[in-house]
Amino acid sequence: MLLGSIEAGGTKFVCAVGNEDYRVLEKVSIPTTDPGTTFTKVINFFKPFKDLAALSIASFGPIEIQKNNKLYGYITDTPKKGWSNVDFVGPIKKELTVPIFFTTDVNGSAYGEYVMAQLFNEKIQSLVYLTIGTGVGGGAVIDGTILGSAGHTEMGHVYVKRHPDDLEFQGICPFHKDCLEGLASGPTFEARTGLKGKDIPIDHHVWDIMSYYVAQAAIQQTMILRPDNIVFGGGVVSEAFLEKVRRDFAELNQNYIKVPDLKTYIRMPRIKDNGSATLGNFALAFKELGN
Amino acid sequence: MLLGSIEAGGTKFVCAVGNEDYRVLEKVSIPTTDPGTTFTKVINFFKPFKDLAALSIASFGPIEIQKNNKLYGYITDTPKKGWSNVDFVGPIKKELTVPIFFTTDVNGSAYGEYVMAQLFNEKIQSLVYLTIGTGVGGGAVIDGTILGSAGHTEMGHVYVKRHPDDLEFQGICPFHKDCLEGLASGPTFEARTGLKGKDIPIDHHVWDIMSYYVAQAAIQQTMILRPDNIVFGGGVVSEAFLEKVRRDFAELNQNYIKVPDLKTYIRMPRIKDNGSATLGNFALAFKELGN
Repeated sequence: MLLGSIEAGGTKFVCAVGNEDYRVLEKVSIPTTDPGTTFTKVINFFKPFKDLAALSIASFGPIEIQKNNKLYGYITDTPKKGWSNVDFVGPIKKELTVPIFFTTDVNGSAYGEYVMAQLFNEKIQSLVYLTIGTGVGGGAVIDGTILGSAGHTEMGHVYVKRHPDDLEFQGICPFHKDCLEGLASGPTFEARTGLKGKDIPIDHHVWDIMSYYVAQAAIQQTMILRPDNIVFGGGVVSEAFLEKVRRDFAELNQNYIKVPDLKTYIRMPRIKDNGSATLGNFALAFKELGN
Repeated sequence: MLLGSIEAGGTKFVCAVGNEDYRVLEKVSIPTTDPGTTFTKVINFFKPFKDLAALSIASFGPIEIQKNNKLYGYITDTPKKGWSNVDFVGPIKKELTVPIFFTTDVNGSAYGEYVMAQLFNEKIQSLVYLTIGTGVGGGAVIDGTILGSAGHTEMGHVYVKRHPDDLEFQGICPFHKDCLEGLASGPTFEARTGLKGKDIPIDHHVWDIMSYYVAQAAIQQTMILRPDNIVFGGGVVSEAFLEKVRRDFAELNQNYIKVPDLKTYIRMPRIKDNGSATLGNFALAFKELGN
């Protein structure tokens, strides 16, 4: 039996086929162009695998995941040109005729991290995955179930307290200006300094401003969800950056909530090379078969 | 079979005995004095009910709810004098010898609202209960389970964006100064204006400042949990106040997340006269029996 994974991002679609041990057998990266061309390439990748039993899609969003909604399986109002109100599950299902699970990219990653933690016998029941990249988003898994009954989570679009040295910055979220995504996504580096984040040394003060906001996100998730740990992914995140996040988290928490050692509580992904969503998809595809 | 409820607050303990239909048969209010005196009165209330099968306690906090912790069943580091590190479940269990469920006051209320919604066939899977009173706290129920695996939620101790007309106020949280509780709990009225909230007309601008923060809490819970609805309780909350919260929520959301009609999404408790926690306790006691 083979399981399929589609990790659909704004720049590329990573497609993979794996076995029941969640090992990757074949993987391909397809550039995100228009939906028709992209879907055709995705379908052509999977078609030769006659033993494909199920597939999971972890997609950029927003997406419709309510099965009783007539737009179930669609990418809905996305700022990405050409991709608003596009049926994603429909055309794939038509050609591949296998059960498909559909969720957000961050939920896929969160699920992969959760499964990996279980495989290594970590005693955790719940976990948040927060990505800080082109956008900011998060997903949570609680007792093996992805959080969100009215729809998928949108953890980037929350408001935070301003850093005292960042009061003039307007924020860049097209919807909310200075929500978390508007203040702490990757493109805010350029908006603030004219430089890309990757070209700014970690001891530049702008990294402290970033970590202050990301630490507040961790505080929100801690107080609202009480997860066992919080995993950070995305292009902005590094171990050196997370050290700053841990410092600011401790300062903002004031020891009010007892959390585990911050080195394990606020952490990089267990799965290297952005593999969390692929593993998550394999496990979600397997689950979609009634396992 | 009889079920017991203890709703333990900083000023009073409301104890009740109910039947399997969750109807209150007898109820008493005991002033919160020192732990020994208070517990003795609680035990004396329940003792005559020979058919008491189980009990649930919804307590002010913070409390220890992890069963593998040696302080399970304790009120831990509370600012309330005489109540820090006090064993709550132990002495009650010793005298009444019934199974006891132990949770926070707001979790009890959240559970009561969830059960009531199910009894009335509302199609909801998840719900948040947020109380704005002497403090700010919240609990969530998802698919019949109280949220929080690493401990109970502390939804009041999150940070928010400042209202532009409230930049000078320092906040009154003894731990975090200007967290949500520090900016939007009942005592902030007096700290800001010298007047108690109940003496300030709803068209006074301070109510707009309050609603701005409470709406941000609703935004956080919406984006992080995607609950089916959010119930507001506590002394600060009224229907007129929630109208302001709905207005600010709409403004802060910018239609980014599609939520149900705000009149039902952001709402007063289904159960009148602060009865949510009592009903929740009856249901949690019943569940503790393996139901």
